[in-house]
Amino acid sequence: MAPKKIKTNDKHIINLAAIVGGVKSILYHQEDLLAYDCDGFTIHKHLPKAVVFPRNTKEVSEIVKYCSANKLPFLARGAGTGLSGGAIPVNGEVIISMVRMKRLLSVDLENRRAIVEPGFVNLMLTNSISAKGYYYAPDPSSQYCCTIGGNVAENAGGAHCLKYGVTTNHILGLEVVLPNGEIIEIGKNGIVDEPGYDLLGLITGSEGTLGIVTKITVRILKSPESKQTVLAYFDKVEDGSQAVSDIISAGIVPAALEMMDKIAIEGVEAAAFPVGHPKDIEVVLLIEVDGISAGIEEQINQILDVCKKRNVRDVRAARNEEERGRWWANRKTGFGAMGAISPDYLVQDGVIPRSKLPNVLRKINQISEEYGLRIANIFHAGDGNLHPLVLFDAKNPGEIEAALEAGSACLKACADVGGTITGEHGVGIEKREEMRFVFSDEEIIAQTNIREIFNPDNLLNAGKLFPIPGRCVEIKQEMKTS
Amino acid sequence: MAPKKIKTNDKHIINLAAIVGGVKSILYHQEDLLAYDCDGFTIHKHLPKAVVFPRNTKEVSEIVKYCSANKLPFLARGAGTGLSGGAIPVNGEVIISMVRMKRLLSVDLENRRAIVEPGFVNLMLTNSISAKGYYYAPDPSSQYCCTIGGNVAENAGGAHCLKYGVTTNHILGLEVVLPNGEIIEIGKNGIVDEPGYDLLGLITGSEGTLGIVTKITVRILKSPESKQTVLAYFDKVEDGSQAVSDIISAGIVPAALEMMDKIAIEGVEAAAFPVGHPKDIEVVLLIEVDGISAGIEEQINQILDVCKKRNVRDVRAARNEEERGRWWANRKTGFGAMGAISPDYLVQDGVIPRSKLPNVLRKINQISEEYGLRIANIFHAGDGNLHPLVLFDAKNPGEIEAALEAGSACLKACADVGGTITGEHGVGIEKREEMRFVFSDEEIIAQTNIREIFNPDNLLNAGKLFPIPGRCVEIKQEMKTS
Repeated sequence: MAPKKIKTNDKHIINLAAIVGGVKSILYHQEDLLAYDCDGFTIHKHLPKAVVFPRNTKEVSEIVKYCSANKLPFLARGAGTGLSGGAIPVNGEVIISMVRMKRLLSVDLENRRAIVEPGFVNLMLTNSISAKGYYYAPDPSSQYCCTIGGNVAENAGGAHCLKYGVTTNHILGLEVVLPNGEIIEIGKNGIVDEPGYDLLGLITGSEGTLGIVTKITVRILKSPESKQTVLAYFDKVEDGSQAVSDIISAGIVPAALEMMDKIAIEGVEAAAFPVGHPKDIEVVLLIEVDGISAGIEEQINQILDVCKKRNVRDVRAARNEEERGRWWANRKTGFGAMGAISPDYLVQDGVIPRSKLPNVLRKINQISEEYGLRIANIFHAGDGNLHPLVLFDAKNPGEIEAALEAGSACLKACADVGGTITGEHGVGIEKREEMRFVFSDEEIIAQTNIREIFNPDNLLNAGKLFPIPGRCVEIKQEMKTS
Repeated sequence: MAPKKIKTNDKHIINLAAIVGGVKSILYHQEDLLAYDCDGFTIHKHLPKAVVFPRNTKEVSEIVKYCSANKLPFLARGAGTGLSGGAIPVNGEVIISMVRMKRLLSVDLENRRAIVEPGFVNLMLTNSISAKGYYYAPDPSSQYCCTIGGNVAENAGGAHCLKYGVTTNHILGLEVVLPNGEIIEIGKNGIVDEPGYDLLGLITGSEGTLGIVTKITVRILKSPESKQTVLAYFDKVEDGSQAVSDIISAGIVPAALEMMDKIAIEGVEAAAFPVGHPKDIEVVLLIEVDGISAGIEEQINQILDVCKKRNVRDVRAARNEEERGRWWANRKTGFGAMGAISPDYLVQDGVIPRSKLPNVLRKINQISEEYGLRIANIFHAGDGNLHPLVLFDAKNPGEIEAALEAGSACLKACADVGGTITGEHGVGIEKREEMRFVFSDEEIIAQTNIREIFNPDNLLNAGKLFPIPGRCVEIKQEMKTS
């Protein structure tokens, strides 16, 4: 069968198709492009000009050179699970999809590193090495489908980042296509602390605005000998919050320390993985410790003691691995579980000093009342990374706007106690204006100056990450009318 | 007594003195400036124009503005313990000494952070909080006198960085005076994962070329409940190296894993803190584990087993805290101990994948023979951070040059096996040319472009960190004639 031909007269589509090897590696019909009009931040939608599927770094470089030469805006996209709109083509970008660059290129157990292509799915890495006793630590809730390239762009976190750090702490090297098409390698050999400026840190978490990552060297860890998980129920938010602080103060560094509040519990119990949380409880904590077996029991006993001192209603360790797995499934599918109790929801992502937890949760309650919208909280309590989930119904006039404003007010509450506006989801288009809660004009300019030198024509993922007064206003209006 | 008056007609000296509050806060006579003509890298010397001692951020900002307006080159200096020449005024800089900005501004145990001024001495922080059960992790061997500001500039490491990471992993926020005098705050509230570009990571380790740090928020850690240290002697380098890999492969993450070779042992035993190492041994390992008491003994037993399998001649745990302390004093004063067996020495700082340890140690032996200079090795074996110490006598014609070349050859050997040219000492003026061992021209330009936007007039610590062909040749010639 002869390959299908391109059915368009658009010379850019024809030329881009030629770079990636033909019609099977490009989408350009409107009905195909609809699947790419947003990512995990679904409130704002825009059609790309085209979606191309390169298979190697050279093709990425050529696409980028072509777009630059022809002043076509472009951006890279992984699995599209990002929650802040970083992969939304707000300028009708050419989307460079990385999903065909999905190989595990090498595993070096002796030096504890692996090299992957950006489209390689996060959980696949752990699955590929777990039989040998190793794993990859960053575990965003979307890890079963999100790509490591996307994780690098957003500096993704996860439940176990309390002990093990976020993505940037596990990236040893990157191959990057710069916006002019040049290919550079950073941390070529997986050496963490390279001389010169920390380009590795700069590009990790830059939300796809400085370059396109085409190869990633990650650190892999020895799987802990043993793990144990505790569930603890509290009748008062204050007691649960204080238990969080007490555990850390006791010198324990849990692998994870998660909290869900009453509305969140209602959601997860109504969804796919209920575990029988009491419905009248204010707070549930999920606390995991890991390490060598000899130390686990002592730590678990200390945790049980702390919880008892803080008036826990019920607390217990998982009876077996199967129960532990169910508890985690209940937690990790928590965002989606909101669909069981609300037509729509907006997840926010603020960070606060741990000691401010009770204050800020009270403030979020007030915001909920003020906007007349329920707000659930499912979050990484141990590192103060809040996830208020604003529940709303897009069919009710004005509720999208109210949810966005309530979400923004939650972030303001975080910033006001010395926190910040994103822990792991990124800024994208969602939180551009909120950047002003934490940065002065000078501080924003110091950053946009950096974008300028990497990306002087502003063709790569433009309009993301930083407030751009004119453009933001425009987008806010588009939102209201879309 | 009336304050002394400035005895010079140099208007810049007079104006700078006025900014910092008079004659007691500035040095400008040649005999005073001699103390500032080099830092811990003593091979190359240059007099500064003046040394000023600001007491607060505002004064730093005004000095910087004055220097910028008058095109006077300037740089910041802490305790001057840096080993790569980062604080040497190669352009006759105005040195901004941070030693009067040395306050511990606040300690927040609940949220595990402290705020210090840049001139605050590293070890003072741990000393200030240890009674409450906390400490500051990065522990360069110079920690009893080096400043945290200098540690930030060089991204300093230390013996315990294997488990706890280098300085950049412990910095939560910075106040920075930019080269135009503007003051910015990054990570204002000690939140690790700020939105936007990672300026915190970019400035940490930028060797004083992007701005002057005037306030630092650091992470403090709970002191481990328990520590134990093991000494292990091996007759063969290969066995000692393999034991290092085996310990890590066993899933143990030691707090520290240090190695010294035969020549190093000769040095430390001849110096201030001998501990009775056998003189005929090829390798000694110093292995420390820490954590909750319950797990320590099991880990120590595993380590003893690994060592026995690798033909250890003798291995034992410290009998008590006093013995442990002596072992560490023996190791931590190791560089200086070279003075007991050689008139001069040059310390190098390469990093290699752990698995390449035996290869590279062999190669260093060959380099030693080739140049006719003894090379001792005292280093952080666990993270592959080598410190070849080239022993020489500056009085012998040509030996400085030979030592420099032998040091450079050691770094080349590291780069050639996929390593890099500095783990913790920085590039400074010492390793500028060696940057080419690990970076292409494009990669160096990507970095110098960043310096350009922060530092467009190149007045701040110019001529450091990157190869500058013309200038480097010039300095090499100065070296030969000085």
